[in-house]
Amino acid sequence: MLKIDDPDIVREVTEASDCYEVALMANDLTQLDALFRDAPETIRYGVGENLYGFEEIAEFRKTRTGGSPRRKVLRRVVTTYGHGMATVNLEFRREGSTRTGRQSQTWLRTDEGWRIATAHVSLMESFS
Amino acid sequence: MLKIDDPDIVREVTEASDCYEVALMANDLTQLDALFRDAPETIRYGVGENLYGFEEIAEFRKTRTGGSPRRKVLRRVVTTYGHGMATVNLEFRREGSTRTGRQSQTWLRTDEGWRIATAHVSLMESFS
Repeated sequence: MLKIDDPDIVREVTEASDCYEVALMANDLTQLDALFRDAPETIRYGVGENLYGFEEIAEFRKTRTGGSPRRKVLRRVVTTYGHGMATVNLEFRREGSTRTGRQSQTWLRTDEGWRIATAHVSLMESFS
Repeated sequence: MLKIDDPDIVREVTEASDCYEVALMANDLTQLDALFRDAPETIRYGVGENLYGFEEIAEFRKTRTGGSPRRKVLRRVVTTYGHGMATVNLEFRREGSTRTGRQSQTWLRTDEGWRIATAHVSLMESFS
């Protein structure tokens, strides 16, 4: 089995996740694009959209007026598997909302650095 | 970079994903538990719950009367990265609902076979 949560790898991925959060709040499209793996396999399920491939994801961001709503991260779990793969799961609350949001990302180490391969963002329901 | 979508690996993960769907619809708790990695790192964000660790996930299923609502899978993308890691993303529709559901899973090859490390299930909103 892969080594889980090697401290050096956790540090790397945590930094990448921090960068993502800063870029999201700043609506820094260049940085947000840079953190997603530029590939047709990349998938992002957002709160209200399902996007397949890097191009659809980048296009969506361009047309999203004002960027993502402001949010506060309530809890984050970074887990690394071996040297080249990691998951980041977090809960958040959007300003003015009482619903809990969730964001899951799967990260891969690429030749260019850590990149998001898949992401899923949603708001939790009051039912299952 | 890892080899993406090696056909043999895609076949393995597709079979595992098929098993999961059958088990979900049958509310086969033994099989559902068996397909999640039995570890404290395992996370499942469901439509209406955030579960951390294998124990919380198993406990939730036990108390879920009747199991998951019936659903139809509309689209599924299996992507494999190298020999030991894969993502499965799918869209679904629950019986009697007009909302689109999404399920994202990250799978790992373990000594016991392919297991889900993280999962996120949600219903898409009409806003972003």
